[in-house]
Amino acid sequence: MKLKPLFDRVVLLPEEEKETKGGIILPTATAEKSQIARVVAVGNGKTFDGKDVGMLVSEGDRVLFNKYSGTEITIDDVKHIVIRQADILAVIE
Amino acid sequence: MKLKPLFDRVVLLPEEEKETKGGIILPTATAEKSQIARVVAVGNGKTFDGKDVGMLVSEGDRVLFNKYSGTEITIDDVKHIVIRQADILAVIE
Amino acid sequence: MKLKPLFDRVVLLPEEEKETKGGIILPTATAEKSQIARVVAVGNGKTFDGKDVGMLVSEGDRVLFNKYSGTEITIDDVKHIVIRQADILAVIE
Amino acid sequence: MKLKPLFDRVVLLPEEEKETKGGIILPTATAEKSQIARVVAVGNGKTFDGKDVGMLVSEGDRVLFNKYSGTEITIDDVKHIVIRQADILAVIE
Amino acid sequence: MKLKPLFDRVVLLPEEEKETKGGIILPTATAEKSQIARVVAVGNGKTFDGKDVGMLVSEGDRVLFNKYSGTEITIDDVKHIVIRQADILAVIE
Amino acid sequence: MKLKPLFDRVVLLPEEEKETKGGIILPTATAEKSQIARVVAVGNGKTFDGKDVGMLVSEGDRVLFNKYSGTEITIDDVKHIVIRQADILAVIE
Amino acid sequence: MKLKPLFDRVVLLPEEEKETKGGIILPTATAEKSQIARVVAVGNGKTFDGKDVGMLVSEGDRVLFNKYSGTEITIDDVKHIVIRQADILAVIE
Repeated sequence: MKLKPLFDRVVLLPEEEKETKGGIILPTATAEKSQIARVVAVGNGKTFDGKDVGMLVSEGDRVLFNKYSGTEITIDDVKHIVIRQADILAVIE
Repeated sequence: MKLKPLFDRVVLLPEEEKETKGGIILPTATAEKSQIARVVAVGNGKTFDGKDVGMLVSEGDRVLFNKYSGTEITIDDVKHIVIRQADILAVIE
Repeated sequence: MKLKPLFDRVVLLPEEEKETKGGIILPTATAEKSQIARVVAVGNGKTFDGKDVGMLVSEGDRVLFNKYSGTEITIDDVKHIVIRQADILAVIE
Repeated sequence: MKLKPLFDRVVLLPEEEKETKGGIILPTATAEKSQIARVVAVGNGKTFDGKDVGMLVSEGDRVLFNKYSGTEITIDDVKHIVIRQADILAVIE
Repeated sequence: MKLKPLFDRVVLLPEEEKETKGGIILPTATAEKSQIARVVAVGNGKTFDGKDVGMLVSEGDRVLFNKYSGTEITIDDVKHIVIRQADILAVIE
Repeated sequence: MKLKPLFDRVVLLPEEEKETKGGIILPTATAEKSQIARVVAVGNGKTFDGKDVGMLVSEGDRVLFNKYSGTEITIDDVKHIVIRQADILAVIE
Repeated sequence: MKLKPLFDRVVLLPEEEKETKGGIILPTATAEKSQIARVVAVGNGKTFDGKDVGMLVSEGDRVLFNKYSGTEITIDDVKHIVIRQADILAVIE
């Protein structure tokens, strides 16, 4: 089963808090609204009014995103986020 | 009897909550504002100011949409949603 | 006597509530903000800043519109609505 | 003495309430925010950012406008309204 | 000493209330937010994002403007208004 | 040490209140939100979305600006303002 | 480990308050919302709707930015800021 996001939206699989803390980047206490996730599906890269921005992230990318953006959904019992590309802050390389 | 939505609007037939729970994707408790529906009619794919975005969804598609968007109507005693295409998050494949 | 709406506006003659209930489509209890009307006059299809969107509805069309949009006026003692085309949700075929 | 409105503005001479009641169109009790007036001067038909929309109304037209729009002024002791063309709902023919 | 307004701004010298009352146009009691002034300096007619709208008013024009717009300044002890051209309602001819 | 403002921003050195009072232009009591300053650095004249508006002010110009706009910073113990060009009302000639 | 910001975003390494006070520029008490940082990564210079503004700052630049903008993150235990280029006020030369 697969989700195909519309427009410039992206489906993200957020990393567990614990996992993140053992990693390298994590949100500061004062800025706990950003988070880390893995990209699992990308849209066609067009904005709502038809401008072709292109997708700057690809499936498998590890990204930093704004926690207060997007919509949470559950796929096969796992929490995912559907978010607009512009709410992804950066790709972690 | 048929509805022909204007502009980039779509008519959706929401899935029953029960039916959804037996399915694969369902909104999490903390994000109950997204939902699943079947597309039953699509507009001409133009935005309100005349830009041709095209319709990215087709009749029969199963989609994930934002519950707080759109307008509820009743067709032949069944609840439907009229929504703008940009408020559909993803197609479920 | 006739009204000629400016821009992409439309003059609607709303159906009586009773009449609607005997028909096929009616707003649900939880979404009583949409309504059904007959189109009686249409504008020139241009938006306020001069873009030519065209009129997607014609005189005589039966349409579903958002009750909270538009302005009520009385023509020959009958309540009418002047509304922008973008606030018409769908044509009923 | 004459007013030359700037941009897409129009100067209106509102009809007396009494006069209107004896006429054919009048606002309903629940929608008393629209009104009837005579056009006495028109602008050059350009929007604030220079788009040429053209004037859709002419001097002498009888129009329906939104009462809450525009600015009231007094010319030779008579109340007038300066309003943007987009706030005129329709021409009465 | 002279002010050269930026963009589509205009410098106005408001008429005294008394002087206005003896004149022909004056704001009504219920709409005392419009006023009359003399244009003393004009900008280059471009909007903030570089569109060339042109100046529709010239030095010396008597204009009707919206009192709640613009910024008051004092030049040689006399109150002036710096206002955007779009907040001038009409030229008085 | 020098600041190079980004986009259409300008760095201003505000005049002392006292100095201003002895000058020719000063804000009125009722409109104390405008102020006078000297331009000390200018940006490249492009807006945030890349439109080339050009810089209408130059280093050394004496300008009138809106006090509530911009950000105060201290350079070598002297208060300066970083402001967008569109918040400068006029050049004083 | 490296962050690659999306669109016109920039990753900043803010200077310590103490370090800043010994420097040349620092925010005034009344305007403590601006700050100084070093640029450590830049995006591709396109805005969210695909306009190519270009990056006006480069890695290593010392910049003045608006403290209330952007999102704080922690990289290798050091606080960083992810910010849009338009929220950088000026480059310090």
